[in-house]
Amino acid sequence: MIDLRSDTVTKPTEAMRQAAFEAEVGDDVYEEDPTVTRLEATAAEMLGKEAALFVTSGTQGNQIAVLTHCQPGNEIVMEENAHLFVYEGAAISAFAGVQPRTIRGKRGAMAPDDVRGAIRSEDIHFPETGLICLENTHNKAGGVVVPLENMQEIYEVAREHGIPVHLDGARLFNASVASGVSLKRYAAQTDTVQVCLSKGLGAPVGSIIAGSSEFIQRARKWRKRLGGGLRQVGMIAAPGLIALTEMIDRLKEDHDHAKRLADGLANGRGLVLEEQVDTNMVLVNVKEAGHDADSFLAALEEEGIKAVKYGPYTIRFVTNYGVASKDIDTVTERIHNRFGTVSS
Amino acid sequence: MIDLRSDTVTKPTEAMRQAAFEAEVGDDVYEEDPTVTRLEATAAEMLGKEAALFVTSGTQGNQIAVLTHCQPGNEIVMEENAHLFVYEGAAISAFAGVQPRTIRGKRGAMAPDDVRGAIRSEDIHFPETGLICLENTHNKAGGVVVPLENMQEIYEVAREHGIPVHLDGARLFNASVASGVSLKRYAAQTDTVQVCLSKGLGAPVGSIIAGSSEFIQRARKWRKRLGGGLRQVGMIAAPGLIALTEMIDRLKEDHDHAKRLADGLANGRGLVLEEQVDTNMVLVNVKEAGHDADSFLAALEEEGIKAVKYGPYTIRFVTNYGVASKDIDTVTERIHNRFGTVSS
Amino acid sequence: MIDLRSDTVTKPTEAMRQAAFEAEVGDDVYEEDPTVTRLEATAAEMLGKEAALFVTSGTQGNQIAVLTHCQPGNEIVMEENAHLFVYEGAAISAFAGVQPRTIRGKRGAMAPDDVRGAIRSEDIHFPETGLICLENTHNKAGGVVVPLENMQEIYEVAREHGIPVHLDGARLFNASVASGVSLKRYAAQTDTVQVCLSKGLGAPVGSIIAGSSEFIQRARKWRKRLGGGLRQVGMIAAPGLIALTEMIDRLKEDHDHAKRLADGLANGRGLVLEEQVDTNMVLVNVKEAGHDADSFLAALEEEGIKAVKYGPYTIRFVTNYGVASKDIDTVTERIHNRFGTVSS
Amino acid sequence: MIDLRSDTVTKPTEAMRQAAFEAEVGDDVYEEDPTVTRLEATAAEMLGKEAALFVTSGTQGNQIAVLTHCQPGNEIVMEENAHLFVYEGAAISAFAGVQPRTIRGKRGAMAPDDVRGAIRSEDIHFPETGLICLENTHNKAGGVVVPLENMQEIYEVAREHGIPVHLDGARLFNASVASGVSLKRYAAQTDTVQVCLSKGLGAPVGSIIAGSSEFIQRARKWRKRLGGGLRQVGMIAAPGLIALTEMIDRLKEDHDHAKRLADGLANGRGLVLEEQVDTNMVLVNVKEAGHDADSFLAALEEEGIKAVKYGPYTIRFVTNYGVASKDIDTVTERIHNRFGTVSS
Repeated sequence: MIDLRSDTVTKPTEAMRQAAFEAEVGDDVYEEDPTVTRLEATAAEMLGKEAALFVTSGTQGNQIAVLTHCQPGNEIVMEENAHLFVYEGAAISAFAGVQPRTIRGKRGAMAPDDVRGAIRSEDIHFPETGLICLENTHNKAGGVVVPLENMQEIYEVAREHGIPVHLDGARLFNASVASGVSLKRYAAQTDTVQVCLSKGLGAPVGSIIAGSSEFIQRARKWRKRLGGGLRQVGMIAAPGLIALTEMIDRLKEDHDHAKRLADGLANGRGLVLEEQVDTNMVLVNVKEAGHDADSFLAALEEEGIKAVKYGPYTIRFVTNYGVASKDIDTVTERIHNRFGTVSS
Repeated sequence: MIDLRSDTVTKPTEAMRQAAFEAEVGDDVYEEDPTVTRLEATAAEMLGKEAALFVTSGTQGNQIAVLTHCQPGNEIVMEENAHLFVYEGAAISAFAGVQPRTIRGKRGAMAPDDVRGAIRSEDIHFPETGLICLENTHNKAGGVVVPLENMQEIYEVAREHGIPVHLDGARLFNASVASGVSLKRYAAQTDTVQVCLSKGLGAPVGSIIAGSSEFIQRARKWRKRLGGGLRQVGMIAAPGLIALTEMIDRLKEDHDHAKRLADGLANGRGLVLEEQVDTNMVLVNVKEAGHDADSFLAALEEEGIKAVKYGPYTIRFVTNYGVASKDIDTVTERIHNRFGTVSS
Repeated sequence: MIDLRSDTVTKPTEAMRQAAFEAEVGDDVYEEDPTVTRLEATAAEMLGKEAALFVTSGTQGNQIAVLTHCQPGNEIVMEENAHLFVYEGAAISAFAGVQPRTIRGKRGAMAPDDVRGAIRSEDIHFPETGLICLENTHNKAGGVVVPLENMQEIYEVAREHGIPVHLDGARLFNASVASGVSLKRYAAQTDTVQVCLSKGLGAPVGSIIAGSSEFIQRARKWRKRLGGGLRQVGMIAAPGLIALTEMIDRLKEDHDHAKRLADGLANGRGLVLEEQVDTNMVLVNVKEAGHDADSFLAALEEEGIKAVKYGPYTIRFVTNYGVASKDIDTVTERIHNRFGTVSS
Repeated sequence: MIDLRSDTVTKPTEAMRQAAFEAEVGDDVYEEDPTVTRLEATAAEMLGKEAALFVTSGTQGNQIAVLTHCQPGNEIVMEENAHLFVYEGAAISAFAGVQPRTIRGKRGAMAPDDVRGAIRSEDIHFPETGLICLENTHNKAGGVVVPLENMQEIYEVAREHGIPVHLDGARLFNASVASGVSLKRYAAQTDTVQVCLSKGLGAPVGSIIAGSSEFIQRARKWRKRLGGGLRQVGMIAAPGLIALTEMIDRLKEDHDHAKRLADGLANGRGLVLEEQVDTNMVLVNVKEAGHDADSFLAALEEEGIKAVKYGPYTIRFVTNYGVASKDIDTVTERIHNRFGTVSS
């Protein structure tokens, strides 16, 4: 099987396994695990923030950010297809007691004026806007890169109103590699940022949230309440450290593969790219091919290819560390064999 | 001052005051207040539901409905300008731990297919859709009447998926009077409904939620937790009973006034009606008149007229029991004197 | 029936009804109801606080205090039989997300050292102590008066740790009348206080919370979220104002009645007073009389007397405005006739 | 340093590191990690439950149990020093909206009659009792074993009332080894159970919750919301599997060490054992030795010994895999040298 469902399916490298094997560990609830401490310091430095915290998933990082930034009865402004809204089980409402206020963006980017318009004035009927949340790359929009300028403008709006900004940067590494904008410059447009080690970077488990020291101190307690205070965490932090220091540049390969896959499919009968490929995702609409997402996925499965449904007629392919160039060609070939090719 | 800010400003009638004075009362926490019991029975009968409960406000009624229908981590489908989303302080998230999923409607009505598309499938990442909430008349859309057919279609979608429907009928009486559709027929398209006694009907305080007996029994406990379990409540239920039995028909007068006001303003220089007038609200856009909402309201204030801001350039006027026909003419006249009239 | 279940069953006086009939009203969500404004100002002055807010019940007042003082994940120190813990449906946890930390008191009073010992130090595992809650008179302990000195000592402990103190003073008027300590002196030992108008004072509905202006401003928004933002509230505030200004002194009569009832029962076969009578409550243990609470209540009912169960073998009688001296004698007489009297 | 602070400080064994290195992994959010699946099946079998779920900590396991069993506004009956109440940051209230109802136990065991008495009847004022939580061994009571009979009696009370029972079995392995009662027999007295792999068993990270298949399916979603849905989790599940299959019997050694330590200290001047040693914990009161907990810990630190404060005058020592027999003798010796020994 060629697995293009997500970059989360990547398996740890030999070096990561070796690092886990050798990891120097301690009890991190007592803040005595030297490996996680090193990982957090490294991440904070790379993101240009005072401090960082290891968490077990992107969802946990985002939830901790919301719990630490907000009060119950607050509202969070975010794009209408933000992961935080669509894919986190309404946890922001269940745990933090806050309400999402969603804005329709373009290629994942909210218009700064829309953000300004969504910020609540003081009124007895209104929630207080407690946070603005960005996502880069934007997953549901197709792994697209949100422009730095857009983030800058929104951050200005936020600061005018004294509202913090959190960046769901689960795939910020992809954005940075694709755009050439450094992690630090992106992170500078936010108060806090979450990045995932276990997606394209291939670590088995874990994410990072970074922000001010004061913020991270309070975040640590919310992490404990969520059950994310771990013991000899060095064994999973060690592979994470390799992800962070050795695996970022290779994302370019995933991006090349995604473009190659998009090009390969583009001349397939009725397969329509829904979005220009910026990073490691390819969204394909299968309606004109006479399929819906479910039937197309079933056919792919028979061809030994895995992808996921992203809408009634939309399929998402994600290139990742476990997929080589030749696998891309195999996928293209099998799809063409199965569904036919338009002759030029 | 002629007060057109809201129909909530209506003052109780002499009959209501007399009823309060004479009300037979008891301790309603022990369910021994005969007046509130009579009010609840009357309301249940009028709405065609098994049981009803007196609550102190529309917000309290809506919140109790959400708390009783939903579990934390659920999602509620509603129109993007629903009162429940815009004007209740994110209380559904703060108290019930649920997330709003908003849909852009037309004149307050969500397309049934959009509702269907918003219902979540079972997935580890997704909240469960716990409730669909309708609003009729739709306040933010301009007091418009949501068609019965639309409600019927959405109710069918809901039943297909086993999801309850709650109607925020704060102004359902206006919808019924304007459309000629009975309260019962509207309520039949829902599992639970909330109606306000203290808006156009003029009661000083109070709303009603109605539904199955089992639902109302559980709702009673959530009302207690919210601090809405009252003692000799008959003194406020008595005016509510008059509102319910004697004041509905007179809403037609408010509707006539609203149309008369809309007609009067329509030929004013640059004042643009934002929405056709269905009931007792008039939304006016003042941008072409060279104003924004704040400056226009200030000018109105100087003319002895009160209204509210409903957007950067939008003013809402609400006709109500305290405003007579001649007041409408006065308002039109003063506005024309102040802002000028287009000659034909 | 002679109703000794609670002082909540008191019915409004003629003067209260008249006041409701004549009340000057406005829309209190716009803060334009002159009667409630007058009630709030009067209450604030009597309690020696900057500001006050009308709420619909003692539970609502307490919940608003908790929501305004605390953050989710906080802990509240309170006596183990506090109303807030026993009788409010776990609403402090459901709505405010805080955990009660209960202490066994003596006659409703917590030992200041126990309070000090219950305050949490800073630790990653611990909730933060967000509030200390007192209750005076203490209901479950038998309507006993908590000594001012005890409150002073606890307030000192609280201030040492920077933790606010809230007083559930649902029956603070009884405490004040019984002890001769002014409301102001009690309230001075707290940051915020809640008092009920609808218990011994006889108002049909309503309570007051009082505190700093800044606190009350934030409390107002939580009241709105709970559905306690009312419209022409003057109609219920007016009786409340009479309760506050004309009905306090008469509580002495209830206290005399309670003592008279206690004395009358004390020589009854096997009826044991559980607590010295300080105010308007009498707790009687019926075990030695060969009864349990349920069978005893049933027997009382047959005799035309109502009381409530307060434990497996405990009955609570509450004297109140609806019970005259001769009723007390009737109760004593009927109980003796029914259950026998020990001859000396 | 000899570290007796907790059994959480144990470091993974060589075999565990090797297992992590070699672990077969997959994406567990897709339920495709064979190692965690094997761990969960093994745990379920050992505990006699239908299904089990890997979680990142005991706190996460307990929180998931509460979220899955309870509704907001519920009450949980538990011992007054339960970990769930004392050490989890009030998360049960912050996240699940439930209120703890604590009972004073003896050696960690609640009297079944007290549990029965704490269960709420149906009343508009009362929370519903949603869960009974036990803890075995009981940490704060000194690692004592709660008798199986006590658990059986409480489980009968629970079933009479239709209330589920959850066991915080963070150290259930210790209880089982000490008492000879099998894990299965303990777990049979509960609906759900949580056990920790990262305490005495030495795994670096992780706990297990077990219960019915239906329960675990719902628990999986709450785990996702908490951010505990991991990816290539096999790398931490593999050491956990070794903990579960190879490390239980060795707990006897920790228990022997604890008794040896207790005996060694018992003749020290003024060091008083607070509780008989059942498992791997020793609670020592240092008051008669002229110390308080802080000064005693500081002195221990100078002697190269680590322990934790468990009260103003109480020190807890926990024997663990990282502490050998000779270390125990060294500890005894150093303490005697420092604080003196009573001659016989």
